[in-house]
Amino acid sequence: MNNELHEKAQLARTAARNLAHLSTEVKNKVLQSIAVALGTNQAEILTANAVDYHDAQATGMEEALLDRLRLDGARLNAMAADVQAIAALPDPVGEVFDMRTLPNGLQLGKKRVPLGVIAAIYESRPNVTIDIACLCLKSGNAVILRGGKETLRSNKALADTIRKALAEAGAPVEAVQLIEDTDRALVGELLKMRNLIDLVVPRGGAGLIGYVRDNAAMPVIAGGIGVCHTFVDNTALLNKAVDIVYNAKVQRPTVCNALDTILVHKDVADAFLPLMATALAKAGVELHCDDTSLEILQKQSGLKLKPAVPDDWGKEFLALIAAIKVVDSLDEALDHIDCYGSGHTEAIITEDYTSAMRFLNEVDSAAVLVNASTRFTDGGQFGLGAEVGISTQKMHARGPMGLKEITSYKWICMGCGQVRP
Amino acid sequence: MNNELHEKAQLARTAARNLAHLSTEVKNKVLQSIAVALGTNQAEILTANAVDYHDAQATGMEEALLDRLRLDGARLNAMAADVQAIAALPDPVGEVFDMRTLPNGLQLGKKRVPLGVIAAIYESRPNVTIDIACLCLKSGNAVILRGGKETLRSNKALADTIRKALAEAGAPVEAVQLIEDTDRALVGELLKMRNLIDLVVPRGGAGLIGYVRDNAAMPVIAGGIGVCHTFVDNTALLNKAVDIVYNAKVQRPTVCNALDTILVHKDVADAFLPLMATALAKAGVELHCDDTSLEILQKQSGLKLKPAVPDDWGKEFLALIAAIKVVDSLDEALDHIDCYGSGHTEAIITEDYTSAMRFLNEVDSAAVLVNASTRFTDGGQFGLGAEVGISTQKMHARGPMGLKEITSYKWICMGCGQVRP
Repeated sequence: MNNELHEKAQLARTAARNLAHLSTEVKNKVLQSIAVALGTNQAEILTANAVDYHDAQATGMEEALLDRLRLDGARLNAMAADVQAIAALPDPVGEVFDMRTLPNGLQLGKKRVPLGVIAAIYESRPNVTIDIACLCLKSGNAVILRGGKETLRSNKALADTIRKALAEAGAPVEAVQLIEDTDRALVGELLKMRNLIDLVVPRGGAGLIGYVRDNAAMPVIAGGIGVCHTFVDNTALLNKAVDIVYNAKVQRPTVCNALDTILVHKDVADAFLPLMATALAKAGVELHCDDTSLEILQKQSGLKLKPAVPDDWGKEFLALIAAIKVVDSLDEALDHIDCYGSGHTEAIITEDYTSAMRFLNEVDSAAVLVNASTRFTDGGQFGLGAEVGISTQKMHARGPMGLKEITSYKWICMGCGQVRP
Repeated sequence: MNNELHEKAQLARTAARNLAHLSTEVKNKVLQSIAVALGTNQAEILTANAVDYHDAQATGMEEALLDRLRLDGARLNAMAADVQAIAALPDPVGEVFDMRTLPNGLQLGKKRVPLGVIAAIYESRPNVTIDIACLCLKSGNAVILRGGKETLRSNKALADTIRKALAEAGAPVEAVQLIEDTDRALVGELLKMRNLIDLVVPRGGAGLIGYVRDNAAMPVIAGGIGVCHTFVDNTALLNKAVDIVYNAKVQRPTVCNALDTILVHKDVADAFLPLMATALAKAGVELHCDDTSLEILQKQSGLKLKPAVPDDWGKEFLALIAAIKVVDSLDEALDHIDCYGSGHTEAIITEDYTSAMRFLNEVDSAAVLVNASTRFTDGGQFGLGAEVGISTQKMHARGPMGLKEITSYKWICMGCGQVRP
């Protein structure tokens, strides 16, 4: 039994009870003071991060991961702005909704409450430490943070900043716990602590998510795997379709809402594919083409083309690569998505009313878009402030998870002596 | 691998896709036709039930369980009325909510969708077969039913009735699957089928619920264990308090929302306890008293009194037994509930505004009531129609689970060419 883990989880549980009743005023004061401290403690945080960066580089961490690990003044300022944004959001806790008076005079409704203690297991991205801790604090949840071991020093500096802000505001300091033991076995132990942890949010690769889902004794909200499709219908305005596809694929290819598979209606394949390929080629996108699209595109020069292999369908590329398939109909596109999608985000580009409505109704994903880039599936873009993650499951919360999505409710019922007949 | 289970789960999964898009009109037609068939097929259903009853009696099933297993004309009529009530409820599927227009012109909202396939594992109560199947059908979910083996014949007759109604209405017959294999090992297998089953609802004793929660690879909504408290505050109107406590304990003692522990403020203990004990004695309620309440009540004759043992706190009696404790204050009552409650239902009887508000705010249970009987925590009483169960967990749904509580949502987003800057 890991003592650090059990002690910290117990402290979080106790803190959660107080945190649940903390006023919005105090919670916002904590958040504002965190935002300020991200400025005033810059030297300390950046020094810790520089050591993490140096060590990670020395162990040969790849460039994309190193970039996610690295902090600088501008990034800390952006993080501070995010924290201010969370402070500015309405407090979900205490909201009373669905209130009605029953025929017997009972006044019945629901009142929003925190979940309790949330554990987050995530990769080496120090900004996630701040995002998740601040979302949890604002929503009245205590949090146990278990970040990637390569960012332990950065996370410690950030967690210290948070706990100092809690102390200054007279809020429960133990509401934010950072697990410092980097032993992997500890995750397995954490996942058994159903009495102390109400929800686990794994953020990372498919391996981590699968492991957490298979082993957690408490509820898990898993997400982050996005095999995103965009279907270009036969009525699509082709220039608009090129812009949307380009944005979805190129604007930030390493994230879960980036486009992976482009499905093109056969009636517009000859006209659309060359236009699209020309645009994507400028960004260096590699295209993995089915037979039909390959035949059309290989007449064109300057493209990075490959014949698609079966593995390309349903693959999250996280890179400047897209799979392309020409389909006979909307139905074939829907079937393909049903078969290969991960339930994250799919879009249709169409001017046809019925196609748009059918796509919205029939695609069973967390987010379904018409004539827009898949890149919009994001807590910030959807107006939720930051996000704890993007859920691709159906229970509890689906899609971007902001403040409301990490709360529960209780039924409240005000009577004047009612008994059941 | 159990072939029946895997085949039926696969059929349910396929049916779920069609069921999700079935019109409210067709779903209501199915429900109405089930309601009618519960009348016209009475002979068949009651014959099957009579054999179940006879066998269960022969194996020595206890009276309370036999009573739950038994059907008769009146009970079938009541079940038919419940089905009609479900048909009359609004269809949750397709409801669009939280719709807003973002600054960039994207129209964003949520659309309610079914969960998919729900598996219900329950005890020998044939009415549950109808309740759960009809709630699932109305909410567009396919369902896999696994009832107690003692009611297999009754459940087969009921499931046949349902499937016939589905066929007549041209709805997917395979949406309702009854598992006929009564091997207990099959539940373990079912709990691994994450790809085919979206949610498991165990209804039964603590053993079943614990087993399902520990072994399910998919989300579980557990509930049904209700250690319900009622706190009689020092400002309570005593006659009102007696009526409420009597109703909560006596009206139906064998169910989860029946009262278990009565907490009494010391200032009213002398006046209230004898009044209450006199009333409860008429129903033959046995009182398990702490020292203070025992001292007060043992002066009175005609009561069934026992000194409370530590096990009485936090016990769900499911019988005409109540534990009684005198507390010094609202705070002590809150601490007791926090320590021993099961998160189901708690009530306060008070005329004091601050006590009522504090109780509503600070008790962390699925339902918190002021001046009303705990027996109200029920899908029917709360106006949800029937219920799949009463959730005592915080994720997804809390308290009585009706139609809306077995749905999810997807984000829908209608654009006109938006890309992310």
